[in-house]
Amino acid sequence: MNKQELFDNIRAKQSFLCVGLDTDIKKIPEHLLADEDPIFAFNKAIVDATAPFCVAYKPNLAFYESLGLKGWTAFEKTVKYIKSNYPDQFIVADAKRGDIGNTSAMYARSFFGEELEIDSVTVAPYMGEDSVSPFLAYDGKWVILLALTSNKGSHDFQLTADEKGERMFEKVLRTSQQWGSDENMMYVVGATQGSMFADVRALVPDHFLLVPGIGAQGGSLAEVCKYGMNSMCGLLVNSSRAIIYADKSEDFAAAAGSEARKVQQQMAEELKLHGLL
Amino acid sequence: MNKQELFDNIRAKQSFLCVGLDTDIKKIPEHLLADEDPIFAFNKAIVDATAPFCVAYKPNLAFYESLGLKGWTAFEKTVKYIKSNYPDQFIVADAKRGDIGNTSAMYARSFFGEELEIDSVTVAPYMGEDSVSPFLAYDGKWVILLALTSNKGSHDFQLTADEKGERMFEKVLRTSQQWGSDENMMYVVGATQGSMFADVRALVPDHFLLVPGIGAQGGSLAEVCKYGMNSMCGLLVNSSRAIIYADKSEDFAAAAGSEARKVQQQMAEELKLHGLL
Repeated sequence: MNKQELFDNIRAKQSFLCVGLDTDIKKIPEHLLADEDPIFAFNKAIVDATAPFCVAYKPNLAFYESLGLKGWTAFEKTVKYIKSNYPDQFIVADAKRGDIGNTSAMYARSFFGEELEIDSVTVAPYMGEDSVSPFLAYDGKWVILLALTSNKGSHDFQLTADEKGERMFEKVLRTSQQWGSDENMMYVVGATQGSMFADVRALVPDHFLLVPGIGAQGGSLAEVCKYGMNSMCGLLVNSSRAIIYADKSEDFAAAAGSEARKVQQQMAEELKLHGLL
Repeated sequence: MNKQELFDNIRAKQSFLCVGLDTDIKKIPEHLLADEDPIFAFNKAIVDATAPFCVAYKPNLAFYESLGLKGWTAFEKTVKYIKSNYPDQFIVADAKRGDIGNTSAMYARSFFGEELEIDSVTVAPYMGEDSVSPFLAYDGKWVILLALTSNKGSHDFQLTADEKGERMFEKVLRTSQQWGSDENMMYVVGATQGSMFADVRALVPDHFLLVPGIGAQGGSLAEVCKYGMNSMCGLLVNSSRAIIYADKSEDFAAAAGSEARKVQQQMAEELKLHGLL
């Protein structure tokens, strides 16, 4: 999916919501545990209920890997289900990968290869260019590079300023633009970072940003839009726990759909406010 | 395995070699492809041939993940085979993970939980303390934090100096010592970094270092030992491709054993030179 197609989907759905599939066997409704593949059963129901209100899904690899083989099966089934039934949804493999060149090439094959053909993968920048560029070798696929994350630990290294006053996340944003473009790279910027979105936009005015941290982590959608939205929206705002665990009863999917719809309606207002609808 | 036990194993084996299991289905001997699980068949033969000459194995997760379910099966079988047959070997899951707290906790469960009980996992520092600390919650397990990696891209961000002249890898070494100790943390420092080992040792004199980059990547064992060895050796030096792909014929395992033995003999000399044998 290219940038224009993503923006077209955002306008059609009046939403730039990404639903995070952080599916934890310990948190899903009890009645699903009788299913042959409870994780996939949960994801399928969540996707069916939320697809009208979002443009992207972000399965978080950690949650699948922690279940070993069963988890990988559920991950693959989920990706294939979304691709078959909702081909306009943008899929993010939230994997935070990154290693020396030949190893990153293997990770890229895992996510972008023929078996799964996922749209994008999150990548950590610490190891530099040759850890990122193998992911950029796939036409039509996206790297989503960590820049300024939503967690408390983001302050440990990402805000460290160099001799010229440039902070690490700014150096990542600036340097990485030599590796790819706004047609194959996005950046992770946490919703909890508030007005720092303006500093991010000063460096990457045209790139899409993947924004975690609204919902359970407490970031503000209005503030993210105020400082982060651009002429092609430029935002995929993720919510995981607040949507998928909205309810633990047998009505969990309807509750998730309802929560997703609430966020979608706020997003429609923001898109109108910024003249994009 | 604790630090003293690791050092005891190093003295007993006269080796601080870690064999990297970067097993690529495209590079293993052809006759193995007829096996039901070629990746595991290869690893089993490599482990049996090299175990007398090394103290650690480092399966690189990317190589297994890229094969999907089959890869995960081979990874789990390999870990269990090493643990059952060579319980004194230290196992490194080379995964370069790191995410917000609740997600890192899931990754920690994948590697350290009851199913696999791997000794250690490599972790990327970019997201800071709460991305690392969940891995430190497991008694007897180790975090191996990326500090100064062996690849060209290590220069992009790891060498950036802050206003006081402290480079990013130095800040990672210094800051992370508040999170764990030399009994549950090691650091990745690439063999290709040469005399920068002295700068690393100035900050972490007592920690073990996991050192990739000899062999195919060109780093020098003698230089690593000169600047990096401490009173408990303090080094696990990894070689992957130069050992496991030493030969592509049916004699591949014997050739790998022979290469491992050559490295072990150089290591025994270094240990003697530093008064540790």
